[in-house]
Amino acid sequence: MVPKLFYFPGNANLAPHMVLEELGAPYELVLVDRAKNAHKSAEYMKLNPMGRIPTYVDGDLVISETAAICLHLADKYPAKGLAPALGSPERGRFYSWLMYLTNTVQAELIFHFYPEKIADADSARAEIKAKEEASVGGMFDTIEETLAGHGGPYLLGQTYSILDPYLLMLGRWTRNMKRPARTLPKVSAFMTRMLERPAVKRAFEQEGLKAPLI
Amino acid sequence: MVPKLFYFPGNANLAPHMVLEELGAPYELVLVDRAKNAHKSAEYMKLNPMGRIPTYVDGDLVISETAAICLHLADKYPAKGLAPALGSPERGRFYSWLMYLTNTVQAELIFHFYPEKIADADSARAEIKAKEEASVGGMFDTIEETLAGHGGPYLLGQTYSILDPYLLMLGRWTRNMKRPARTLPKVSAFMTRMLERPAVKRAFEQEGLKAPLI
Repeated sequence: MVPKLFYFPGNANLAPHMVLEELGAPYELVLVDRAKNAHKSAEYMKLNPMGRIPTYVDGDLVISETAAICLHLADKYPAKGLAPALGSPERGRFYSWLMYLTNTVQAELIFHFYPEKIADADSARAEIKAKEEASVGGMFDTIEETLAGHGGPYLLGQTYSILDPYLLMLGRWTRNMKRPARTLPKVSAFMTRMLERPAVKRAFEQEGLKAPLI
Repeated sequence: MVPKLFYFPGNANLAPHMVLEELGAPYELVLVDRAKNAHKSAEYMKLNPMGRIPTYVDGDLVISETAAICLHLADKYPAKGLAPALGSPERGRFYSWLMYLTNTVQAELIFHFYPEKIADADSARAEIKAKEEASVGGMFDTIEETLAGHGGPYLLGQTYSILDPYLLMLGRWTRNMKRPARTLPKVSAFMTRMLERPAVKRAFEQEGLKAPLI
């Protein structure tokens, strides 16, 4: 049976979707209609008890969490080189970035988008949104310095990895902020280059994402 | 040169510290005196530009992020079996849990402890602390159900892995909440069992942690 990626356009599925296209791996997209709250349906929550998108299902194996799906896919197709070799120092540095993207950049973006999780009053929600926007801006400044420091073109330097589609997705999520990721020169060049990759183009098209893409 | 783990008692270093003891790997503890803001010193931030604790340094390799250090250590000593084999379905499930612990349980605990990151007013901070306490409580309810569902004794079921010291550390961080992790029967049994492991005892003792431990 063909593995399934449960998605909603532009959600966190976009990273593993780009990875699947990059790998040329077999998969089938299955829409979870978030607009109709389908991610909280009993049926979907049987697969993903947290009610989160995406979920990747390959036979009996059910994987939740964007970073977990990307890492699993990189491991499943080692010849494609989307993650440094196990046990190499480069793999250690790669893990540091992957964890930072998932537990800090993505986690704080989620509080920016959903401040109602932790505050009731409109004023408190507005403050959280603004403070998280500033905080995420600082994270992209650090990423800008990293790209400038090693010269790119990818987050790890010369090596393309799953970190790159992940970073493109998170950068894209800042597109309506006052100081979006695309306003930083190195990050902007990175994102533009990423959008030229055929695999990335296919994933964006399949999800029906419209301009402005980043 | 012996690898170094930069730590502050009871901080996120506790998980990789327990892992190092479990592996019997060579390492040296280096105190970062957070009470004196040493984690924001120029010297430390050369190693860890985010100014976070822990950092693991092995020669030229510098790894930040708790989950990254634990995963790197498990990979470095594959014969010890602290992570399922690369490419196995079990490894995919393990990744899902690891990402959830780092990007949700730990990330939300951090907002509980440091609400000043995202709110100025005392009332807003108090609300965030309370809402995060409830949210983290729900996460431990899910973990309780998981342990009850497969019968334990570990987070993955029969297989001990780096997830277990990670979970013990996060559960410990709830010890002053109204409904701490230790009040859930399966989680409590898990934490008590973990505290009996010689490696765990050594790590707690070396960090000078005092009762109540959980």
